[in-house]
Amino acid sequence: LGARTRTNKTSQRSLNAVGEAGLLGRLLPKLSRELSRSASVKPGDDAAVVPAGPGGRLCVITTDILIEGVHFDLDWTSPEDLGHKALAVNLSDLAAMGNVTPGFGVVSLGISPKKPVAFVDKLYRGMARIAKRHAFDIVGGDTVRSRDLTISVAAVGWAKRPSDLILRSGARPGDFILATGTAGDAALGLKILQKKAPALLNLPAGLRRELAARLLRPEPRLAAAKKLVKTGGVTSLLDSSDGILRSVQIIREASHVGAEIWLERLPLSGAAQIAARQHPQLVLDAALAGGEDYELVFTARPAAAQALLADKTASLIGRVLNFSEGLQIYHHGKLRRAPRAYEHFAR
Amino acid sequence: LGARTRTNKTSQRSLNAVGEAGLLGRLLPKLSRELSRSASVKPGDDAAVVPAGPGGRLCVITTDILIEGVHFDLDWTSPEDLGHKALAVNLSDLAAMGNVTPGFGVVSLGISPKKPVAFVDKLYRGMARIAKRHAFDIVGGDTVRSRDLTISVAAVGWAKRPSDLILRSGARPGDFILATGTAGDAALGLKILQKKAPALLNLPAGLRRELAARLLRPEPRLAAAKKLVKTGGVTSLLDSSDGILRSVQIIREASHVGAEIWLERLPLSGAAQIAARQHPQLVLDAALAGGEDYELVFTARPAAAQALLADKTASLIGRVLNFSEGLQIYHHGKLRRAPRAYEHFAR
Repeated sequence: LGARTRTNKTSQRSLNAVGEAGLLGRLLPKLSRELSRSASVKPGDDAAVVPAGPGGRLCVITTDILIEGVHFDLDWTSPEDLGHKALAVNLSDLAAMGNVTPGFGVVSLGISPKKPVAFVDKLYRGMARIAKRHAFDIVGGDTVRSRDLTISVAAVGWAKRPSDLILRSGARPGDFILATGTAGDAALGLKILQKKAPALLNLPAGLRRELAARLLRPEPRLAAAKKLVKTGGVTSLLDSSDGILRSVQIIREASHVGAEIWLERLPLSGAAQIAARQHPQLVLDAALAGGEDYELVFTARPAAAQALLADKTASLIGRVLNFSEGLQIYHHGKLRRAPRAYEHFAR
Repeated sequence: LGARTRTNKTSQRSLNAVGEAGLLGRLLPKLSRELSRSASVKPGDDAAVVPAGPGGRLCVITTDILIEGVHFDLDWTSPEDLGHKALAVNLSDLAAMGNVTPGFGVVSLGISPKKPVAFVDKLYRGMARIAKRHAFDIVGGDTVRSRDLTISVAAVGWAKRPSDLILRSGARPGDFILATGTAGDAALGLKILQKKAPALLNLPAGLRRELAARLLRPEPRLAAAKKLVKTGGVTSLLDSSDGILRSVQIIREASHVGAEIWLERLPLSGAAQIAARQHPQLVLDAALAGGEDYELVFTARPAAAQALLADKTASLIGRVLNFSEGLQIYHHGKLRRAPRAYEHFAR
């Protein structure tokens, strides 16, 4: 009822005032209620799940749209990078659902007729390379005229059974919070490419390239996601497309739990560690709240967490608390700034 | 080899010079060759087809993207219309594949943050209504910031067996050419909305609204497509999204046949017939070459054609010839202008 009242009040306001998260929060439950009879996982997770018929397999579907000037800048993004990333972010959504085998997808491309044909060739080459590596088939698409370059990919994957899927909603107090790979590299890479953090420009060129590559060519963690499912003890899962802090907040909301994050545990790449020697706060902020790493963030029962730490699949970054304990961020045991302080960092 | 040579030559040219059809013709075979291991229907048809697993069902997938200023004008397109059309054109792609049951899909929306929330509500309401009518589930999506309003839908449908599908490539000399519904209404509707044909503005308001509605709210012909498959004698099929002439040309290329179109047989709506009394050439051009009617154009063996004419599922508009006979357009038995003369009409 409260939500309903808010709906009526906001309908005259602009999307700007409501915000993207507000918009999705507003639309998805409505779509779910009105439209989603067949979906066995409700809209709002990284991807939707639909029974695929008599075989018992589950069809997992996701879509992401990248728009020039909003999601990428052609000054520093090569067409190959763009093709790679357009598919990678969708494959990351499939990984974020658990043990999902990439299947096939379609690509809609909006592009200016003034672009050289070679640009499109390179874009598809970037897409083809990552598709092949993950045995993903691009089976069709639509190409139209557009002012701003626009790429929309819809990707379908397959899960054998419901237990292959891990949603955002299963975290329980006593679970540990873990993350694959390293955190903050993509956000540092963006600052370098945008020349927004002059301090970072003093880093050796090789390190700058490494950080930028994490932004431009993210690798979907499909193999790691399979491992997570196999432990049987991973209770919630999503990707870190909007940063670890946002991922933990999403798990908290979906699972109705509290959480504790340990800043000194956030896994840093070699490049980030070197940058941190001169700019510790910048790197820490990026690791906590920087987006676009496309790593996995998840919660696990203690035994599963231990197994995944032992084989270096992931790093320990915190633990799940009771809902009433809220979100607490610690640095070497000391309580730090409220999460709101990091919001400026999110793209 | 010839195609390969052309590829190298064109890679420095702009997309403008190559054209959209040229671009798709260039990309799709390449994607098919490089990427499409699982697709059982090659890219280039209205939708792609992928085996859905042990059940033996086939997964049919399509995508269409609509961009403001290119595909629609918000001056005369209501948000409900736009939501309806974004889904309708995708469902039409499914119908154009044969006996396909709509399943589920995802929606990517690029929208300016300045748009009122009510706009998005109405857009989704238009989408929800047609989705419900066709038992289609919108299971997820992505919403991002964008200068131009952009809607990309990917739609998945199911076919029970390969014989439920009719491709573009099965037409044979001796088949008849048929079309469902009426032709040219959407193109006339566009001219009315654009105020580009002053003559049409003299039509009674009711007729003008009727023609405009055909452009703004096309109805996918899923039920008719099922009937076509049941005859067992329909040999090729697609929708008339780019007009009947273009549809026939596509069937000719895919099936390697010639064709004869009988202009006086093109089925006209009541509104178009009334318009034709004052503007016969304008209406005839629209019926032959105007796009966006989203009716079905198909070829059928004589017995199947007869059955479909008898129950008024479709109208007879021509016949399939040998490849060497090319394309011939007749009006009351007289050979008419070359098809090129109609190209200006295509959007």
